[in-house]
Amino acid sequence: MSAEVNAWPDDPQLDCDEHGHMPRLNVSLKLSALDSQFAPVDTEGSFRRVAARLRPILRMARERHAFVHFDMEQNDYRLLTREIFQRVLMEPEFRDFADCGIVVQAYLQSADDDLRNLLDWARNRGTPITVRLVKGAYWDFENIVARYRGWPVPVYRRKWQSDDCFERLTAVLLQNRQWLRPALASHNLRSLAHGLALAEQLQVPPQGLEIQMLYGMCDQQAQLFRKRGHRVRIYTPFGELIPGMAYLVRRLLENTSNESFLRQSFTDSISVESLLMKPSSHAAAEPPVVDPPQAGFVNEPLSDFSRPEVRAAMQEALAWVRDHLGATYPLVIDGKLCDTRATLISRNPSKTSEIIGKVSSASHDQTADAIAAARRAFEPWSRVPVESRVEYAGLIAAEMRERRFELAAWIILETGKPWQEADADVAEAIDFCTYYAREAQRLSEPRRCDFPGEENSYVYRPRGVCAVISPWNFPLAILTGMTLAAIVTGNTVIMKPAEQSSVVAAKLMEIVRNCGIPAGVVNFLPGIGEDIGPVLTRHPDVDLVAFTGSQAVGLEINHAAAETLAGQRNVRRVIAEMGGKNAIIIDEDADLDEAVVGVVRSAFGYSGQKCSACSRVIVLESVYEPFLQRLTDAVKSLQIGPAEDPGTRIGPVIDNDSRDRLLEFIRKVDPEHGGQVVLAMDPGPLSRQGSFIGPHIFTNVDPVAPLAQQELFGPILAVIRVRTLDDAITVANGTRYALTAGVYSRSPVTLKRVRAELQAGNLYLNREITGALVQRHPFGGYRMSGIGSKAGGPDYLLQFVIPVNISENTMRRGFAPVTENHS
Amino acid sequence: MSAEVNAWPDDPQLDCDEHGHMPRLNVSLKLSALDSQFAPVDTEGSFRRVAARLRPILRMARERHAFVHFDMEQNDYRLLTREIFQRVLMEPEFRDFADCGIVVQAYLQSADDDLRNLLDWARNRGTPITVRLVKGAYWDFENIVARYRGWPVPVYRRKWQSDDCFERLTAVLLQNRQWLRPALASHNLRSLAHGLALAEQLQVPPQGLEIQMLYGMCDQQAQLFRKRGHRVRIYTPFGELIPGMAYLVRRLLENTSNESFLRQSFTDSISVESLLMKPSSHAAAEPPVVDPPQAGFVNEPLSDFSRPEVRAAMQEALAWVRDHLGATYPLVIDGKLCDTRATLISRNPSKTSEIIGKVSSASHDQTADAIAAARRAFEPWSRVPVESRVEYAGLIAAEMRERRFELAAWIILETGKPWQEADADVAEAIDFCTYYAREAQRLSEPRRCDFPGEENSYVYRPRGVCAVISPWNFPLAILTGMTLAAIVTGNTVIMKPAEQSSVVAAKLMEIVRNCGIPAGVVNFLPGIGEDIGPVLTRHPDVDLVAFTGSQAVGLEINHAAAETLAGQRNVRRVIAEMGGKNAIIIDEDADLDEAVVGVVRSAFGYSGQKCSACSRVIVLESVYEPFLQRLTDAVKSLQIGPAEDPGTRIGPVIDNDSRDRLLEFIRKVDPEHGGQVVLAMDPGPLSRQGSFIGPHIFTNVDPVAPLAQQELFGPILAVIRVRTLDDAITVANGTRYALTAGVYSRSPVTLKRVRAELQAGNLYLNREITGALVQRHPFGGYRMSGIGSKAGGPDYLLQFVIPVNISENTMRRGFAPVTENHS
Repeated sequence: MSAEVNAWPDDPQLDCDEHGHMPRLNVSLKLSALDSQFAPVDTEGSFRRVAARLRPILRMARERHAFVHFDMEQNDYRLLTREIFQRVLMEPEFRDFADCGIVVQAYLQSADDDLRNLLDWARNRGTPITVRLVKGAYWDFENIVARYRGWPVPVYRRKWQSDDCFERLTAVLLQNRQWLRPALASHNLRSLAHGLALAEQLQVPPQGLEIQMLYGMCDQQAQLFRKRGHRVRIYTPFGELIPGMAYLVRRLLENTSNESFLRQSFTDSISVESLLMKPSSHAAAEPPVVDPPQAGFVNEPLSDFSRPEVRAAMQEALAWVRDHLGATYPLVIDGKLCDTRATLISRNPSKTSEIIGKVSSASHDQTADAIAAARRAFEPWSRVPVESRVEYAGLIAAEMRERRFELAAWIILETGKPWQEADADVAEAIDFCTYYAREAQRLSEPRRCDFPGEENSYVYRPRGVCAVISPWNFPLAILTGMTLAAIVTGNTVIMKPAEQSSVVAAKLMEIVRNCGIPAGVVNFLPGIGEDIGPVLTRHPDVDLVAFTGSQAVGLEINHAAAETLAGQRNVRRVIAEMGGKNAIIIDEDADLDEAVVGVVRSAFGYSGQKCSACSRVIVLESVYEPFLQRLTDAVKSLQIGPAEDPGTRIGPVIDNDSRDRLLEFIRKVDPEHGGQVVLAMDPGPLSRQGSFIGPHIFTNVDPVAPLAQQELFGPILAVIRVRTLDDAITVANGTRYALTAGVYSRSPVTLKRVRAELQAGNLYLNREITGALVQRHPFGGYRMSGIGSKAGGPDYLLQFVIPVNISENTMRRGFAPVTENHS
Repeated sequence: MSAEVNAWPDDPQLDCDEHGHMPRLNVSLKLSALDSQFAPVDTEGSFRRVAARLRPILRMARERHAFVHFDMEQNDYRLLTREIFQRVLMEPEFRDFADCGIVVQAYLQSADDDLRNLLDWARNRGTPITVRLVKGAYWDFENIVARYRGWPVPVYRRKWQSDDCFERLTAVLLQNRQWLRPALASHNLRSLAHGLALAEQLQVPPQGLEIQMLYGMCDQQAQLFRKRGHRVRIYTPFGELIPGMAYLVRRLLENTSNESFLRQSFTDSISVESLLMKPSSHAAAEPPVVDPPQAGFVNEPLSDFSRPEVRAAMQEALAWVRDHLGATYPLVIDGKLCDTRATLISRNPSKTSEIIGKVSSASHDQTADAIAAARRAFEPWSRVPVESRVEYAGLIAAEMRERRFELAAWIILETGKPWQEADADVAEAIDFCTYYAREAQRLSEPRRCDFPGEENSYVYRPRGVCAVISPWNFPLAILTGMTLAAIVTGNTVIMKPAEQSSVVAAKLMEIVRNCGIPAGVVNFLPGIGEDIGPVLTRHPDVDLVAFTGSQAVGLEINHAAAETLAGQRNVRRVIAEMGGKNAIIIDEDADLDEAVVGVVRSAFGYSGQKCSACSRVIVLESVYEPFLQRLTDAVKSLQIGPAEDPGTRIGPVIDNDSRDRLLEFIRKVDPEHGGQVVLAMDPGPLSRQGSFIGPHIFTNVDPVAPLAQQELFGPILAVIRVRTLDDAITVANGTRYALTAGVYSRSPVTLKRVRAELQAGNLYLNREITGALVQRHPFGGYRMSGIGSKAGGPDYLLQFVIPVNISENTMRRGFAPVTENHS
C-alpha cells in the first residue's frame, strides 16, 4: 500500500508529529499471526521463529517509510510479545528505528509496570518508540479464561479502574514523550478530553500526541478533534471479508457492552455528568471487586508458563532430576523396602540411552506378601475416621504441590511427555487427592430416613483390598486417582504401575510414605504385568481391582475376577477404564479455525497416547477439502523433539516396542481400502536417539478398516469423509468403543442431535476432546471402553464402598425418643 | 384372691351400686395375654382360641363372685377384642352375666361409635355391662405405629379433644346407665368433676357411677371422692416384679408427659383456670391437627386386616382367583403372545393337586427372539422422555393398587405365602414402581458444572437390554422392582421369572401390557432357568443382567457375563442379590420378650424362605436357657396350615423338591458336631396335601457345621451358644455371606460396637431382620451375598444407567453468554 499512500497530497496536520515528518502508512501487527506455534512456554523457539519473519517486515517498512505497530493480544501473550519486540528492536540493525510502537493495555493491573518497563527500555535503547494506549479488547476473554484456569484475573474488574489507569498512563506518556510517543486510542470522550486537557496544561503541542479511533465508530468526534488541530488516525481492518467480519463482530460486542462509554452515551438513563465524571469518583459506588474465596472443590491451576520464573523453575527441576537419574527403587510391602532379584530398567523415550531408574520387579511370592500386608492393614485402616484419611490425602496433595516441577520433570523424562502436559498430569494428581477427599467426606455422612420409633442410616463401608493397576500415559495422575479413591474410602492398596512409568510411581510411593500413612495401607509392587497381574486379579484376598489400560487386558481382568475362588471373601469388583477410538465430527458450518486447532490438540497431544485422543476425524463433504488442507498444514508445523524441550509439540512415543508396532501398522495399511497416507512426518535424526514417530494422517479411510476401528495409541489420524450428518453419527458410533467424541458445529440443531445420539462417555462440543478436568469433566467411557463409573466424578467413589443400612428400633414400651431428621 | 377379698368386712359405699350388691374382686384382663397367636387378621382362629380359655375364667368369676373387666390395648386389637367379648357374652351360658365390663378409650376418634355399638349390643343382649371410660394409654404408640405404617392416626391429636370426648361419653354413659354402667377412670380432676356435676344434674345417685384410679397415683384425690360418698376403685398390678416394673414405667411416662393433667397440675406456669377449663375452649388456641400431605416418596401402606371389610375383600379375592385357576399363559415377545411346545405347570404348594396355571416355556429360539425384540425396542424407548416413562410406572402402580387383593391371592395360592406377607409383597411392588419413578426423575436432572465459556452437564443414559431373572419368594415385588428399575431408566427388559411363580409374573406382564407400554419394552419369557438362563446371560445383545436368587446361580451368571463375546456391544453388567446365612445375636441384657418375637418372625416368616431370614441365632451364655425355652415355646404355638387360611403362620415351602431337600438335610445333620434337634414340628396330615415341613430348631450347632454355614431357605433355625459378645460377633461374621444381621441388646456400648463390626448389608438393632421397606431399608448384601447396590435405595438405579459428561464450549470470539448455574 505504501506507494499509493505516499502519493497522497501533503497534509501537515496528519503527516507531521512534534519531531517532523512521519510515515503515513501505519500497520498494526499481531505477532501470533507470524507463527502457528507461537507459545509463551517456548519463548526461545517462538522468538526465533517470529523474529525470523519479523525482520524482513521491519526492513521493508523502513525501506517504504511505513510505521509498524506491535499489537497486544490476550495477557498470555503479553510478555512474549514484549520480549520479541524488545529483542528485535535492540538488534543493531533496528536499534535506531523509531517508526515502530507497541500497545499498552490500561485494563491490565500490570499496565503501570508495563509502561515503566517500556520507558526504561526505550531510554536504554536510545531511540523513541510510540506507545498506543488502549483500554484493551479482551476483557471478557481474560475474565473467562482466568476463572476457567483458576488464575488471578489480570484485568481491572471495574470499568472506572481501567479508565483511571488510562488517565494515569496518559500523564506518564505525556511527561515522557521524548521516549514514548503518545497515541491515545479510545472512543471514550472523557478519556480523550482528559488527555487533551493535560496536554494543554503540560504545554504539549497539538502534534505531540495522536488520537486513534476505529473506522466507522465515532466519525463525528474524529472530525471534531481534527478541527481542533489534532492528528486523528482511523484504523481499519484490511483483507478478506469473512475474517474481517469476525473482527467487526468483536468490536460490536465490545462497544455495545453495558459498560462501554459509547453505549452509555446513547442511554438516557445515564447523565452526562456521570459519563464525564473523574473515573475514581465512581469508587465509592463501585468499590474494587474482591472475589470471595471459592467454595467447594477447586481444580489445581495449571502452571502459567508465560511467566519467566515458572519456566526457570521447570528448567531447574529438569536439571535436578537429571542429576538424580539411575537410582534404584525397591518394592514397598507393609512399609518395608524389599529388593528383588529382577529389576525393570526405565529409560527416557526421548533418549533411550538414558536410564531413568532401576525398579525392583516383584515375584509371585512378593505379590502374595503385598496382598497379605494389605489384608492385615485393612481392618485397622477401615476404622480410621474419614477425617484422618482425608488429612493424609491433604498431605499427599501438599507434597505434590511443593514438588510440582520435580514431579513434572520425572514425567517428562520417564514418559516423554511435553512440559505442559506433564504439568497437567501433576495438577490432575493433586485434583484427585483433594476431590476424592471431599467426596469421601460427603459419602461419610449417613443418609437418614428416620421415623418416630425407628432410626435408619444408610452408610458406606470400604470394600477391602484394592489392586490398582495403572498405565504409563498419565503416570502420576491415574495412579494417584485410583489409589487415593481407594484409601480415602478406607480400602488398602497394592499399586502395580505400568513398567514404563515405575519411577514416577516410586515417587508417588515416596510421597505416600512421607505423609505417614500406616504401613501396609499402600504397597508398591512394580513388576511385569503379564507375570504378576493374574496373581493380583485372581487372588481370593483381593476385593477390588481398579485398572486403567488396554481393552484386551481390561476384559481379561474382568473375566478373571469373576471367577469364584476357594476361600474368596467377596465377589471381586472390577473398575476398568479401557480404550477408545474417538471421533471428532466436522460439520458443514464448523468454525474451521477452531476445529483445526481442536483436532490437532486432540489427535496429536502427547503423540496421541491418551485413551481420550482423537483418532478419527469425520468431515462433512462440503468442508472436507479446506479442512483437510488446513489440518495438514497445521500438523506439518508441529515441532517434533525431545519432551524436555519446551518447544516440542510431538515428543517420542513411550518406547521402541510401541514405535515399532505403530510403524508396522502403518506399513500394513491397505491403500486400496484401509486408507491413503497424506502426511507422514519424519522425525529425522531423532529416530536414532529415541522412540520417535512423526504424525501421520490418512484419508479415504474405510470406516470399518483397522485404521478406523483399532485403538493405536500413537500420532496417527484417520480422516473419513461423509455425505451427511446422519452418516457422520453412524460412523462415529460404529466402533466397539464409546469413550470420547467431539463435534465442531455452529448449528444448534446439530448440537442438540449429537448430544442425544453420539455415543461417548465424554462428549465435547466445539472444543478439544482431551484434557478432561476432575469434577468438571468426570471421565470414562462405556460400551467396550469402560467398566464402572467416571473418574473424577460424583459416582466414582461409590465403586470403592459397600452400602450398609442400619436400622434401629428405638421404641420402648410404646414410647420413642424424639430425634432429629424425622421424616 | 376372691376368698380373701370376700372375707373383708362390709362397706356399703364400696360394695353396692345402684342395683345392689356387686363383686368386690374386679379383675382386668388383656385378651392378647390368652393367646400367643392373637391376631386380628385371623379373627376366627383368635376367637376360637381365646374363647376357649376365656369361658373357664368367666365361669370361675361367676362362681367366686368376681367381676371381669376386658381391657383395651392398641387400636389394632380393638375390634377383635370387642368381637370376642360380645360373642362370648352372647353365648347362652353368659348372656345373663352382668358382672363384666369393657373399656372404651376416649382418645380414639372412633370412641363415640364404639360406645354406641356397645349400647346397641347391650340392649340387644338384655343384660347390662359396665363400661370403663378411659382416655387411653397408648397415645404415643398409636401415633408412632400409624405414622410408621402410613395408616390414619386413630387417636385425637390434641389432648383437649380426648378430654372433650371423655366428657361427651360420660354423658352418654350416665344417660344410658341402665345398660352401660359408668366407671370413670381418670386422674384428671376436671374430667371427674364434670362427671360428678353432670350426675348430680341428672340426679344420678352416688352409687350410680364408679371412679377408678391407679394405685399410687392420686391418693389424696381418691380420699376426697370417697369422702363425698363416691365409690372409688384403685387398680393395682398383680404378679411378678419385673413385668410389673415395665407396666409402672409406662404409667410413669404416660403421666409425666407434657400434656398430662397430673404433670400440668404440678407446674406453676399453668393456671388453675386453664387446667379446669372446658376442654373445647382450648380449640381456638389449639385447633385440631391437619397433617399436610406427605412430601416425597411414601411407602404404600400395608392392608389393615383388623378391619372386617379388608378381610372380606381378601376372602373374596381368594374365591375369585380360585375360580380362575388353571388358565394358560403364553410368552409375550414384542407385544405378541407366543405359545410354546412345552409348558410349565404351576401348582399350589399348600395343595399340590391344585394347578394354578399352565405357563409357556420358552425355547432357545424364542429367547433369541425376545432379546432381538428388546434390542429393537431399546432405541426408541431410550428416547421416550423420563416423564412418560414415569407415567407408565404410575399406571402400573395404580393397577396394582386396584387389583391389590387379587394379586395377593395369586401369590398366596401360587407360592404358599400367608396373607400378610402376600399383601406386603404387593405393597412392595407398588413401592418399587413409585420409588424408582421418583429416582429416575431425580437422576434425569443433569448435574451442571458450568463456567463462563463452558457448560458441563453430567447426565445418565440407559444401558440397553436388561435380562431380569427373578426368584419365586417375592414373586411380584422383586420381579417388579428389577423390571421397573430397568424401564424407568430407559432400558428394555426380558423378564425371566422363576418357574414356581410364573403365573404371578404373567399377572405383572398383563398389568404392564394394560398400561400401554410400547411393544418390546418388556418381554415375558418364562421357561426353565437351567435351559434358557445361559442363553440370556451369554448373549452379546444383552447389556445388563439383574438377578435375584441363589448364590450358585448368581456367581455363575457373573462369570458367564464377564466373558467377551464376538459382536458384544457392552461389557455386560451384573446385579445379583444372592443368599444369606443371617444371624441374630441375643445379648445378655436383651429384652427377651422382644427378642423372641423378633427371632420367630425373622426365622419362620414365610417358612424361612427369604434371603433376609434369620437362620442362626447366637445367644450369650447367661440368657441362653431362658431364651431357648421361650423361643421353643413360642415356635410351638405357630399354626401350620395352608397359606390361604388367615391363621396360618407356617405355610408350605415352595414345592416338594424343596421340602425333600430340606428333610434330607435335616436327616443328615450330625448330632455329634452338626447340631441337635430340640424342636421338630410335624405338619401331620397336611404333608399329604402340600409341601409342608414344620419348624425345626437345632442347638449345639458348631459355627462351622453345614447347618450354620449353608443357606437352607426353610423353617430351620440353628441356635449357637457363645460366651462373649466378641465370640458372638466372630460367629456372626464367620460365613461367606453378609446380607442381614440383627442384635437384641439394651446396652448402648454393644449397639455401638455391632454397628461398626457386624458384617451385613442390612443391620437391624432390636427388631426383626426381615421386612425391609423400600427407601427406609435399602436392601442388599455384600461379600458373597450380593453384587451391586441395594434395591429400593438411592444408588440402585445408577446400575441401570451410564454416566455421560457433555461439555460445550460456549465462548465465541472471546465472549461467552451468561448462563445460570455458574459455579
